[in-house]
Amino acid sequence: MVLKLRRDSESPMYLQIKEALRSEIVSGTFPHGTFLPSSRQLSQELGVSRITVTNAFAELEADGFVQGDPRRGVFVLPLWEKAMTTPGKSVELAPAWQQSLDKGPGWLSEKTRLDLLGQTRKNGAIPFNALRHDLHFLPANEFRNSLNNVLREDGGLALDYEVNEGYLPLRRTLAQYLRRLGILADAEDVVITSGGQQAIDLLCQALVHPGDTVIMENPTYTNALTVFKTRQARVVGVPVDTEGMNIDMLRGLLEKESPRLIYTVPTFHNPTGVIMSATRRRELVTLAHKYGVPVIEDDYMREIRFGSPIPPPIASFDRHGNVIHIGTFSKSLMPALRLGYVVAHGALRERLITLKRTADISSSSLIQRALNRYLTCGEVQKHWKRVSRLCRRRQMAMVAALEQHFPEGAQWSVAEGGFAIWVSLPQGVSARRLLHESLKHNVSFAPGELFFIEPADQPFMRLGFAPVNEEQIERGIKVLGDLMRQQAKRGN
Amino acid sequence: MVLKLRRDSESPMYLQIKEALRSEIVSGTFPHGTFLPSSRQLSQELGVSRITVTNAFAELEADGFVQGDPRRGVFVLPLWEKAMTTPGKSVELAPAWQQSLDKGPGWLSEKTRLDLLGQTRKNGAIPFNALRHDLHFLPANEFRNSLNNVLREDGGLALDYEVNEGYLPLRRTLAQYLRRLGILADAEDVVITSGGQQAIDLLCQALVHPGDTVIMENPTYTNALTVFKTRQARVVGVPVDTEGMNIDMLRGLLEKESPRLIYTVPTFHNPTGVIMSATRRRELVTLAHKYGVPVIEDDYMREIRFGSPIPPPIASFDRHGNVIHIGTFSKSLMPALRLGYVVAHGALRERLITLKRTADISSSSLIQRALNRYLTCGEVQKHWKRVSRLCRRRQMAMVAALEQHFPEGAQWSVAEGGFAIWVSLPQGVSARRLLHESLKHNVSFAPGELFFIEPADQPFMRLGFAPVNEEQIERGIKVLGDLMRQQAKRGN
Repeated sequence: MVLKLRRDSESPMYLQIKEALRSEIVSGTFPHGTFLPSSRQLSQELGVSRITVTNAFAELEADGFVQGDPRRGVFVLPLWEKAMTTPGKSVELAPAWQQSLDKGPGWLSEKTRLDLLGQTRKNGAIPFNALRHDLHFLPANEFRNSLNNVLREDGGLALDYEVNEGYLPLRRTLAQYLRRLGILADAEDVVITSGGQQAIDLLCQALVHPGDTVIMENPTYTNALTVFKTRQARVVGVPVDTEGMNIDMLRGLLEKESPRLIYTVPTFHNPTGVIMSATRRRELVTLAHKYGVPVIEDDYMREIRFGSPIPPPIASFDRHGNVIHIGTFSKSLMPALRLGYVVAHGALRERLITLKRTADISSSSLIQRALNRYLTCGEVQKHWKRVSRLCRRRQMAMVAALEQHFPEGAQWSVAEGGFAIWVSLPQGVSARRLLHESLKHNVSFAPGELFFIEPADQPFMRLGFAPVNEEQIERGIKVLGDLMRQQAKRGN
Repeated sequence: MVLKLRRDSESPMYLQIKEALRSEIVSGTFPHGTFLPSSRQLSQELGVSRITVTNAFAELEADGFVQGDPRRGVFVLPLWEKAMTTPGKSVELAPAWQQSLDKGPGWLSEKTRLDLLGQTRKNGAIPFNALRHDLHFLPANEFRNSLNNVLREDGGLALDYEVNEGYLPLRRTLAQYLRRLGILADAEDVVITSGGQQAIDLLCQALVHPGDTVIMENPTYTNALTVFKTRQARVVGVPVDTEGMNIDMLRGLLEKESPRLIYTVPTFHNPTGVIMSATRRRELVTLAHKYGVPVIEDDYMREIRFGSPIPPPIASFDRHGNVIHIGTFSKSLMPALRLGYVVAHGALRERLITLKRTADISSSSLIQRALNRYLTCGEVQKHWKRVSRLCRRRQMAMVAALEQHFPEGAQWSVAEGGFAIWVSLPQGVSARRLLHESLKHNVSFAPGELFFIEPADQPFMRLGFAPVNEEQIERGIKVLGDLMRQQAKRGN
């Protein structure tokens, strides 16, 4: 290689060297994957200092032509990388096998649903769409203490793989908590999952085959619906009234549909906020036993409650192992934990552990240890009390705003806990159109169709009050009320 | 309710009250789910102090009869909970729907494999079975600093849900890292997963239908094999030689099998440690394009290397989007991060994001943020260097011990990186029997059959040196060598 340098040029030496090397790379003298001569070698050949050569390499690296590696020297990168932003890219990268990806049944209808869900997440909008707590009131400091204590005391052990079923002391703590709720659980009956979502997904994989019938409340939790539909279950809905799932209709379905599974959210039902009565819980357990159908009880929000007693979990009435109780810390503590749990026995437990292994080996040992510390340090009950008090206040503020600003015909009920109010819209108001308009005014909400089995515009909305302060509640609800009135007027 | 108390009894009043309440509960006066009278009410009725009543309640709670709730009062727990440890339990909890769980094809053979894997994990045994770094040398302190900085600066945001595809700044950092390796990747082409395991599992769900053919190296990574087999793929193996997957055999299979997917571990192949040559990488890319078959490149261990240059990733030779590059931080940093990534474009990317949502919504925002901080603080390159040096030293110590203690006929090659040595056993030695015996001497290893498509005793072992110090290496290898000699002698 001969690099031509001009000592009389105005261009500094290192830039001349850079340009010379660049043209050698572009012309193919140094193809992708080869190494440039070392700085020592080049500085001798060219009669310049090594620093000058090193500076030239740094410039080439900044421009994306080469990569320096302390051990291996300076390495030529592929040239086409420079062309990444050209318009042809997406065409280039769509081989035929990719084009057959989107054709599975269940995917298309759920894609529409998830696209709509995506639209509700607008940065800067008042997030009535969100079903989570206010980020300002998460126990960040307490949890940081737990993390630090774990790292200090457990050291490397906290950073290793965890056993698939989860950190044993955490499973012990959870079993104790669950026994207090009346649920038959030892530590070995608890399987830790990456949030309640993974609990639902693994259970669907363990229990449901394509074409099987799954019974859910209608409306129900969006992401559970998406799991069952994309895994090609036939989803059949049961309406919800003020006491929860309609048990008479359920009985009829059990008689004629031979379902594979029942999924229910009995406490602060998502999206309606309804609590299933103790009587219906007992009846559900009896029916599950009679028809030999497992029931997933998604107890996602038990601890955020406003005073009235809640009936014990459905699983606490079960004597035959038909009720699979699942829970999560995403709502009652922090979503970023990504920790939930399943109570499962026997063959189901074995299957879940294998599925957990193939899904992600284990949930983070560090986070499991920190959560266990936090749960056992005596702070969590206080935190739940604080959150519940704040939520109740915001719920009341939202109710006041609804009464003031929503037009006649809008109806809602006030749940005894949880993060949201379910509103039935007055005639002539389309939730879909309302969302379209309210997003322009930076107010978001969860339109009813997200929660119904057959996605179609539904005259409902879920309004989350937990992450929104009282000023925003007043302002946002007024915007929604005004838009509803305008829409109703135009409609007539 | 009338409780009979004896003021002249030697038994303290609170214990008398406890016993009286206990018999009311056992006799059914207070069934599961009801509340006891309040301490105020009882103290008035019985003419004792409230403290005495509270003490009685505490005793009942300690015995598991009731649960106190600050808001709701004292709540009666189900009595059958007391009988949890009776022998009938497991029979009670095995309803008919559970008994049909274990019959899926693929599950049985994989269950055998996973049971064997479980046996290798013996507490207290020298862990030659493990493919992980020494827990004493993980960057626990540096990572704690990153965690603390994130919690201090990002506060609640770090504890919220993350977008499904992952924390944007981390995806940017990874895209930059990947571009340096010559891979075509923007932040938007990177999907964060819960470890490399989830990357494999989601890709299998996106690409493979039951009955589809998947080509893998044989032997290969156990948990990838388990994913494809339990998801009912037909797995076909290609042998591995010193340059990696045998490309001529691959060509023949592509011609006659119409596979749906190729999975490869080209760099420090698990379990053999082989590096696929640059020539074969290029050929593999050409074949993938010619036959329209996607290739998963599992680049799980690139950064732990001992000096020789490694060819660029297979994905860096790809111009058509056929190579799906995946990676993980479990080996090069810490398993407890549970973070990995996929580079995917177009429809595949969309599908992966939907699958990620249904699988676990998102990986932990907190951990993603802390990892991004750690990766960008300039410490990670130093860490990789330190780990590589230590691993090289332990590898050398193991080679010396193998030379000294292993009988004639045992063969191994010394990889240029990674955590393990692959040993071919001398004739007459059964890996399965050897493991059975060595575990009695508290020495574990990974027997060959864990890694082969058809599980059967295989005359190989994988010996991990990374988590084992030099004294343990010497001691453990001597135990294995002695046992092999004894076995060979008995065999003759």
